[in-house]
Amino acid sequence: MNRHNRTVAEWLEQFNAALAQRDLGALQNLFCAECYWRDLIAFTWNIKTMEGVDEIQGMLKQAQSALFSSDGDAGSDIGVVTAWLKFETPIGRGKAHLRLKDGKAFTLLTSLEELKGFEEREGPSRELGVVHGAMKARRNWQESKALEEAELGLSKQPYCVIIGGGQGGIALGARLKRLGVSTLIIEKNARAGDSWRQRYRSLVLHDPVWYDHLPYIPFPKHWPVFTPKDKMGDWLEMYVKVMELNYWGSSECLRAHYNEQEKEWVVRVRCAGKEIELRPKQLVFATGSYGPPRQITVNGQQNFGGSLIHSSAYQSGAAYRGKHCIVVGGNSSAHDICADLWGHDADVTMIQRSPTTVVRSETLMEMAFKSLYSEKAVAMGIDVDKADLIFASTPFRLLAAGQIPLAAKMAARDADLLARLNMAGFQTDLGEDNSGQMMKAFRTGSGYYLDVGCSELIAGGQVKVRSGVELQDIKTHSVVLTDGTELPADAIICATGYLPMNEWVAQIVSREVADLVGPNWGYGSGTKGDPGPWEGELRNMWKPLKQEALWFHGGNLHLSRHYSKYLALQLKARMEGIETKVH
Amino acid sequence: MNRHNRTVAEWLEQFNAALAQRDLGALQNLFCAECYWRDLIAFTWNIKTMEGVDEIQGMLKQAQSALFSSDGDAGSDIGVVTAWLKFETPIGRGKAHLRLKDGKAFTLLTSLEELKGFEEREGPSRELGVVHGAMKARRNWQESKALEEAELGLSKQPYCVIIGGGQGGIALGARLKRLGVSTLIIEKNARAGDSWRQRYRSLVLHDPVWYDHLPYIPFPKHWPVFTPKDKMGDWLEMYVKVMELNYWGSSECLRAHYNEQEKEWVVRVRCAGKEIELRPKQLVFATGSYGPPRQITVNGQQNFGGSLIHSSAYQSGAAYRGKHCIVVGGNSSAHDICADLWGHDADVTMIQRSPTTVVRSETLMEMAFKSLYSEKAVAMGIDVDKADLIFASTPFRLLAAGQIPLAAKMAARDADLLARLNMAGFQTDLGEDNSGQMMKAFRTGSGYYLDVGCSELIAGGQVKVRSGVELQDIKTHSVVLTDGTELPADAIICATGYLPMNEWVAQIVSREVADLVGPNWGYGSGTKGDPGPWEGELRNMWKPLKQEALWFHGGNLHLSRHYSKYLALQLKARMEGIETKVH
Repeated sequence: MNRHNRTVAEWLEQFNAALAQRDLGALQNLFCAECYWRDLIAFTWNIKTMEGVDEIQGMLKQAQSALFSSDGDAGSDIGVVTAWLKFETPIGRGKAHLRLKDGKAFTLLTSLEELKGFEEREGPSRELGVVHGAMKARRNWQESKALEEAELGLSKQPYCVIIGGGQGGIALGARLKRLGVSTLIIEKNARAGDSWRQRYRSLVLHDPVWYDHLPYIPFPKHWPVFTPKDKMGDWLEMYVKVMELNYWGSSECLRAHYNEQEKEWVVRVRCAGKEIELRPKQLVFATGSYGPPRQITVNGQQNFGGSLIHSSAYQSGAAYRGKHCIVVGGNSSAHDICADLWGHDADVTMIQRSPTTVVRSETLMEMAFKSLYSEKAVAMGIDVDKADLIFASTPFRLLAAGQIPLAAKMAARDADLLARLNMAGFQTDLGEDNSGQMMKAFRTGSGYYLDVGCSELIAGGQVKVRSGVELQDIKTHSVVLTDGTELPADAIICATGYLPMNEWVAQIVSREVADLVGPNWGYGSGTKGDPGPWEGELRNMWKPLKQEALWFHGGNLHLSRHYSKYLALQLKARMEGIETKVH
Repeated sequence: MNRHNRTVAEWLEQFNAALAQRDLGALQNLFCAECYWRDLIAFTWNIKTMEGVDEIQGMLKQAQSALFSSDGDAGSDIGVVTAWLKFETPIGRGKAHLRLKDGKAFTLLTSLEELKGFEEREGPSRELGVVHGAMKARRNWQESKALEEAELGLSKQPYCVIIGGGQGGIALGARLKRLGVSTLIIEKNARAGDSWRQRYRSLVLHDPVWYDHLPYIPFPKHWPVFTPKDKMGDWLEMYVKVMELNYWGSSECLRAHYNEQEKEWVVRVRCAGKEIELRPKQLVFATGSYGPPRQITVNGQQNFGGSLIHSSAYQSGAAYRGKHCIVVGGNSSAHDICADLWGHDADVTMIQRSPTTVVRSETLMEMAFKSLYSEKAVAMGIDVDKADLIFASTPFRLLAAGQIPLAAKMAARDADLLARLNMAGFQTDLGEDNSGQMMKAFRTGSGYYLDVGCSELIAGGQVKVRSGVELQDIKTHSVVLTDGTELPADAIICATGYLPMNEWVAQIVSREVADLVGPNWGYGSGTKGDPGPWEGELRNMWKPLKQEALWFHGGNLHLSRHYSKYLALQLKARMEGIETKVH
């Protein structure tokens, strides 16, 4: 046994003993003074980080028992011993990731992986696919599937309804399917994948393939690093088909309310022109990472002689050739649209209202993604499941501090580009605490651009930029900025972002319920757009809300993939009547 | 270094030295007196087994040089040392499998895996998916794809046309796509997968999932052991889409001839009612494992008052409720159709014209598939690529002898069922040399049933059987058998198999070319249906024919998957002008 394995074994022995004897006092000696236990529904039926021994003891007082064991060789990293663990509780099995400092736990991540008696059938336990033997009037697979489709939502009610059939709804739907939770996905577009296909023509995923896998069917080894939007659309469409999800396209959720007596939702859906009432026990909003488009109101906009649209309605620069285009906003969509307009020979000015964190895509791949999500990581044995757990193992309290030096290093690597951007009048920053792009993503989901080409256009003056100003007036053929400048304008594209996610709840359920559950995302960092108090976890995502039987699911492909697991297990546990006391 | 590694290293050193010095005499000491070198296009540009040192020397005289090295630890099996090797030739890289007896080579399999300079891009060499940077008038992925689809076969000619878009054409098309060989697949059905969907309703794959993977996108871990036909159809349809194959549905190849001057095919295709002429350099028949249905002619059949169809047109027993059904044939389709008819309360009699090898599906899984294609094999590190090579490593000369004890063991395991079948009048056998089901498959592709339920119906008398007889006369409401018995008949379903594969060539190209290339399958075993002379390889499959630029591809999913690799590399080599002298 290597030295680190011994250290871990000794810690495990004492930790298991303390848990078995419920000797919570003993934990004082097992955890560092500064310590974190992040739990993904295994002990808290919540997504929650306990900070310090007091909070850990408080949590364990109410938690079920558990037995931990090591799962592979321990390693070490600058004085910290790291180890993979597995554990078992009365109701489930999980994986854990442990960091020990001087023999005491500094961070512990616990992740529930499966519920006993409800394990997903795969590999040796996969289904046979056919019952061998002869029987009368048997239905074949196609007939059974057609029957299920004909009944579900009409004569048979699904246990769960997911509003939104993008990557989030699809990943969750797939997990629920494998867990045997009857589910219906409601999508306003005609086909699965349309939410990608309908974005602007130049869109290509900004995250690399290793970060983007869906559960169950990984992208094949020849898949490109960055997936073009329509290719992503096709992949999602095939995924829905092959995973046999119950997916209603061209369907819109009109309104929903929770019937407290019956403990079920009443959901009105317009499907192919017909109104249908669904009665699921659980309702999930998987309507993307944001709410509806954030429209801006500018003095005089009713007199504008050109077209004024939100970026979500932008398709292609083809219609803008030779025209004066004003793009309001300085984040990802604004950049992609500016580059596409320039590519179609439009005259483009970006109105950057506040500073942007710019990181060259190549720099991000090399410095941020490489250790967990890359070909190199795969070669080191870090598959996507391991990468997700390692990523999740750093508590939010430590995340920003860890990002500050990385953001600085990435800025140093991109220093030449950033300097030229600044010279061109484009303002860059690293966020108010210099923690860079990733923390902006967690806090507000905005304020950054992963450069795939537009920054050179700005630096070179091909895309003009006006920074630190806003639109003050719109005239028939021009806009006036807050600094008094007037710019000719045939088209205004507002890449002004989106309203918060719970605005969909306000529209579909009620303002009261939207306010009751509160906003999504951010973790209470106390920075702009993410006010305190400290939460230590992303608000309201994938976990119980103040409104019973209502859930949010969303985020990029990585978050949709990883956290759909925990949301699916929470729903399964409720369906099976397993006690799910939320800490 | 373990003992076996040392044995292999010593052999390799001498073998490499002999190859380097072209000292073919030295091979006498390196190979056993009985020895086999099976080459999959690496040294012969052919699929060929050299038997004995003379043939090996003859082949090496003309072959390019090569350097072999070991690839992983050697093992041993009853006195035989087994080793994985890799090798490099001037034009390519390959894998090899070696068996040594007393330090000398008993069997050697060489498999070309890639051509130098034309390696498939995957993993670290995968494409980026987008060119970062800003450029004018760039096409996005969807636009490029639409342009390719609009041009291919019309203003731009594909290098290769594949006739038939079932599993064979699709697997080959995928490999060619990844190799950058411009290819068009012509399929008479509307959608990819229809060739499965249109089979009889009760059809479920008889081979297990581990045996059935397509290249590049394996079935996910939850996929059922036996895939229902419509589910297979959906998988193939998604595969065509996601692999971005150029696939013309609802298209029929009318005729084709080879223009010797231009060295290209002139192929007439009817596509959506329009006739189109294609001019590919290479033409592949991937029209399934067989030719057109084998129709039978029986005295009086024109007077029959019921329906008389070939099994390929059979859909469901629903139309036959309460009717007297005669099923002619005793192989897989006949059994599945009998069971389906019985399931729909028809009165069923099977006319078994000759003995059938019956193996219970469970027995086959346990005794034949388990070591290579099973969850156990996967757990032992035998992935599908390894399994395919191990399977291919036994030369045909040794195959039947190895199957005889296995077939006997399987028959012993199923003895009770077989005895009851015989009691019911159903004749069983193990083939004329007792080598069982697999050899029947290789020799004639017929004569067996993998029991998934119908055998119990026959044994129990629910499906009646008349054995060793044929139809002699058909009357208005009955059939008369060659033994004089008359049976009432409302329907006759002829599960009488298919004509040979080259009959498609006769229909589309010419009888002369069909006769020139000769029949497919069989390996010259000298048994019934597979006359000599000894070939030692499956006739005409996946390798050069007597007609230039014409190829056959086909077989079950396993054969389609594995051998599509070699056919694709042969086509790629020809496209790139690499010398491909056929041994």
